Amino acid sequence: MHEASPNDLSRLCIHTITTKPLGIEIAIDKYASLGAGGITVWRDAFGKYTPRQTGEMIRRSGLKPVSLCRGGFFPSVDRSRREASVDDNIKALEEAADMGMPLIVLVCGADPYQSPETSRDQIREGIDAILPRAEKLGIKLAIEPLHPVYADTRSAINTMKQANDMTGFFDSPWLGVAVDVYHVWWDENLEEEIIRCGSNDKIFAFHVCDWKVPTHDILLDRGIMGEGCIDIRQIRQWVNRAGFEGFNEVEIFSEKYWKDDQDEYLERIVLAYQYKM
Amino acid sequence: MHEASPNDLSRLCIHTITTKPLGIEIAIDKYASLGAGGITVWRDAFGKYTPRQTGEMIRRSGLKPVSLCRGGFFPSVDRSRREASVDDNIKALEEAADMGMPLIVLVCGADPYQSPETSRDQIREGIDAILPRAEKLGIKLAIEPLHPVYADTRSAINTMKQANDMTGFFDSPWLGVAVDVYHVWWDENLEEEIIRCGSNDKIFAFHVCDWKVPTHDILLDRGIMGEGCIDIRQIRQWVNRAGFEGFNEVEIFSEKYWKDDQDEYLERIVLAYQYKM
Repeated sequence: MHEASPNDLSRLCIHTITTKPLGIEIAIDKYASLGAGGITVWRDAFGKYTPRQTGEMIRRSGLKPVSLCRGGFFPSVDRSRREASVDDNIKALEEAADMGMPLIVLVCGADPYQSPETSRDQIREGIDAILPRAEKLGIKLAIEPLHPVYADTRSAINTMKQANDMTGFFDSPWLGVAVDVYHVWWDENLEEEIIRCGSNDKIFAFHVCDWKVPTHDILLDRGIMGEGCIDIRQIRQWVNRAGFEGFNEVEIFSEKYWKDDQDEYLERIVLAYQYKM
Repeated sequence: MHEASPNDLSRLCIHTITTKPLGIEIAIDKYASLGAGGITVWRDAFGKYTPRQTGEMIRRSGLKPVSLCRGGFFPSVDRSRREASVDDNIKALEEAADMGMPLIVLVCGADPYQSPETSRDQIREGIDAILPRAEKLGIKLAIEPLHPVYADTRSAINTMKQANDMTGFFDSPWLGVAVDVYHVWWDENLEEEIIRCGSNDKIFAFHVCDWKVPTHDILLDRGIMGEGCIDIRQIRQWVNRAGFEGFNEVEIFSEKYWKDDQDEYLERIVLAYQYKM
């Protein structure tokens, strides 16, 4: 039987949400000690630190700053909430600039009290409102298509095709796509849309985890790579073949793993990264 | 404010699973008393009765037999399980024939230990194996595309497009599609694919319920029409415009409502049917 050589860790990036119980300072230290190449910071992780201080800690650790999670959530039936959302996205851009983060991931949002089409129109308006500031600050935006199970409240952009269509509408070098295997694995058009995305230089990020069978909580029961039904290796091949050379970002939300010893959990993640994808 | 006239109940069909705590005999009696036009029977509902006896009870009640739920679950990495599945589908066809049911709904299945493409190949093989018997018995088969959240174990057919492609492959008057709003509401191609389905006379069934916000259990927390975010009225218009003249089938799985008084629950269903869709 052929034994694949392990993935080296230089392209491994870990999201702070993956080890949510750790504070940012400890997370940075542990990820660097493991040999990971990069870190993605969630906005709930700053704690007592400013974005600027967080950025300095990251630079001192040798980790590469990969992205800030997350902006978006543009749609609402309520105009004042849409305006507040734009303000919050501008704030996220300023935080990213203070940290030296090159990218913000957009979970675009949806409002169940209006049609998905209307939500997508409002997403377009929201992106239009913040894109000039992103360009001015030199920070890229990545639309993350979300699994259709989140179409009610989290995103009306639920396929790679929709994300590609949206980036195509703007045709800006500052707007691209974050491909997360959890959200897109089921889609029969996935390979085709990944190639389309890459051919336009629009793959800005690649997130991995796994879809557990069964999944006990649709939000907070994600699996470690290899633990579920997603053919991550196949999707990663498509993404790389499409020209992507960035990080493989481990983003796992799991009430189960957050209760575990985080050192042992990180060891499992590293092994899964090396051998299961 | 414009007050829509209530939907009359002649096209209302109720699935026995909707009022799971009731036995089949009581369910038939109550649905008929409410003025519903039809009934869909789940195979777990026979209880002490044979399919033939169940069919006789339905005929005596005046309800129209609409469909038997459910066949399908064709894919497996294990050949003997695929063969057993074909046998079970043949058994379901014989049950339907014994009951005088004109239609079986197919939840096509998926095996997480193989790719969705392989599962779809095995679905095609399974349908191919049972279609001659369906034709001989005069019973139609309806592929129900399932929401992508069920792509791991319940169905590798997750969009109307995939269901339409599969029926197109066989091009048999005995194979069509069951459109369930719960599974397809999020899809930007929905209107187009419903029209395509109808133009080929392939809309064999139409199921309604609602997507609750939030949904607490992805399988067993469905809502009554009007309680969630699905624009059922819009989808029903598309289905009717596409030429569908059959029943509107209320199919609700709900641990919550199964605990309620079933008479009060049925009254809520009837009101929702009349005014919320």
